[in-house]
Amino acid sequence: MLTGIEQDALRRALEIAADPAVPLGPNPRVGCVLLSPAGVFLAEGHHRGAGTAHAEADALDRATAPLSGATAVVTLEPCAHVGRTGPCADALIAAGISRVIIARRDPNPVATGGLERLRTAGVDVELAVPEHLAAAAAELNRGWEHGLRHQRPLVTAKLALTLDGRAAAADGTSRWITGPAARAEVHAMRTTCDVVLVGAGTARLDAPTLTARRHDGTLHPRQPVRAAMGTGAVPELPSPEGAGEAFTLRTHDPSDALAALFERGLRHVLLEGGPTLAAAFLRAGCIDELIVHLAPTLLGAGPPGLADLGITTIADRLDLDLVDVAPLPPDLRLTLRPRTA
Amino acid sequence: MLTGIEQDALRRALEIAADPAVPLGPNPRVGCVLLSPAGVFLAEGHHRGAGTAHAEADALDRATAPLSGATAVVTLEPCAHVGRTGPCADALIAAGISRVIIARRDPNPVATGGLERLRTAGVDVELAVPEHLAAAAAELNRGWEHGLRHQRPLVTAKLALTLDGRAAAADGTSRWITGPAARAEVHAMRTTCDVVLVGAGTARLDAPTLTARRHDGTLHPRQPVRAAMGTGAVPELPSPEGAGEAFTLRTHDPSDALAALFERGLRHVLLEGGPTLAAAFLRAGCIDELIVHLAPTLLGAGPPGLADLGITTIADRLDLDLVDVAPLPPDLRLTLRPRTA
Repeated sequence: MLTGIEQDALRRALEIAADPAVPLGPNPRVGCVLLSPAGVFLAEGHHRGAGTAHAEADALDRATAPLSGATAVVTLEPCAHVGRTGPCADALIAAGISRVIIARRDPNPVATGGLERLRTAGVDVELAVPEHLAAAAAELNRGWEHGLRHQRPLVTAKLALTLDGRAAAADGTSRWITGPAARAEVHAMRTTCDVVLVGAGTARLDAPTLTARRHDGTLHPRQPVRAAMGTGAVPELPSPEGAGEAFTLRTHDPSDALAALFERGLRHVLLEGGPTLAAAFLRAGCIDELIVHLAPTLLGAGPPGLADLGITTIADRLDLDLVDVAPLPPDLRLTLRPRTA
Repeated sequence: MLTGIEQDALRRALEIAADPAVPLGPNPRVGCVLLSPAGVFLAEGHHRGAGTAHAEADALDRATAPLSGATAVVTLEPCAHVGRTGPCADALIAAGISRVIIARRDPNPVATGGLERLRTAGVDVELAVPEHLAAAAAELNRGWEHGLRHQRPLVTAKLALTLDGRAAAADGTSRWITGPAARAEVHAMRTTCDVVLVGAGTARLDAPTLTARRHDGTLHPRQPVRAAMGTGAVPELPSPEGAGEAFTLRTHDPSDALAALFERGLRHVLLEGGPTLAAAFLRAGCIDELIVHLAPTLLGAGPPGLADLGITTIADRLDLDLVDVAPLPPDLRLTLRPRTA
């Protein structure tokens, strides 16, 4: 059980871990807050990407008061391995920390063992974190964890559809099918993924910048890498100042594309279109999560939001699990996951 | 304010008003419960369709104890006009009723005035009914009230769609896009409307019986009238034993069809398909409510659930108000209303 002060400290650790200046990719985002035995704030630290200090080391380094008997509140289990930095579990023990609160176990088989090392040293390790805080800690590093488990990036596909499944009107116009809330959410989604991927058709027709912008049009401090894929003519994505790096993947095969992105250290792909790319990834079983922004509007004609899946009869339909429905007035957000056999 | 006993009596009045043996159509469904001054149940009655006693008269007739000082709990304002039966307000007054609880005012300009008549006679009239019971009283006679206000039937359209807007797979198969809960709801909807209407294409391709069946396959006691419309060859709908009357409307014009149905005394139309009929009614502005059973499944190809609306550009899209979202696992029910200018 956590005290109210410890819960506040964990909320703060989650907040600093999510620092938008920290790149995503092959390193986890981690935050750490140190509290005195009486619950007084002593120091905080967070990881800032490959080659920089781990969150625990960062916090220990910033602390000025003695740490004997202090509590460390961390968003991820302290590591037990010597990588570019020493094992954090040992550093906490050496500093005299007597209680460690861990919001999320480390799924990395190379780094795990910190918990056991702490317990062996007599440190009181607390894992019973309130569910919503544990969920936030898991959410921080979804792509990173997926990469550890599956050796390929997590893929979230986003579709904006009318109620009758159209992505545009008969003349090709599509601005805007969804309302401001759904469009703002797309920009927010771009800040939580490593790379936004589009097909050659979308790159050609829409010439999208795929930047993450705030309501006022300014750029968010974290910008995703941007990629277009295809084997034919793929135009370069426009690159306004401040946009993330852009490149082209010379393949039409989803698995090849994901392998190339993983190789570059990218761990969470946001698939933004168009209908052909989404269909290719669905057919290849390469979509982990589908976000549909469903607009309560009808067109009756126009390009469908999803291209041919090679399905000819109802028994072969592609069933999904509907895991969440939320209002994004006037639209609806549906979160779905392909059913795993 | 109603006492707990009076609320129970109103729930009972609503229950008997909804007697499935009572036809829908041009007469409202009404229930009445009589309580002694001490709150003891004395009698109940309900209206059983054109030419039969009103609910109040039916209850008064069944009461054996003296009614002086008694309370009448009614789902609809007692009438003040002499139609096929006398004014119910007068009958309640003559019987010595001293309190009348009314769940819903009578929107019929010919029949209204009962409330004033009761108050003039010194009867305590209570309209402050709990919201959910007032809503149930309104729901009982939706079609009838709509007919009084608009001189045409209420039209509810039902669509079963995949997430990508398909009504069937490429080979035409569509059984089943939605799950058992959504399909059971369609049968329940058939019991609450006066007539189920389909287009010539659906009559030809599906030969639907359009009966209302229970989970076990048996017929519900109330069966809707069934109609198919079109100017070409419209096959007769199959008529298994116990099914409602079936007929053909020789028009392709939604307004003409609705006028003909209204003329027959039908007040609530359930539009069940297909895509062409739904589109024609939407284009004509003849749909009051759209129920979409959205299945979390993808087809990528196949006939769309809605035919051409004559919309060519995004600015002309047909926006709807999403008024309710409810789970019908594994599907979702969306309730929408066309936006009125």
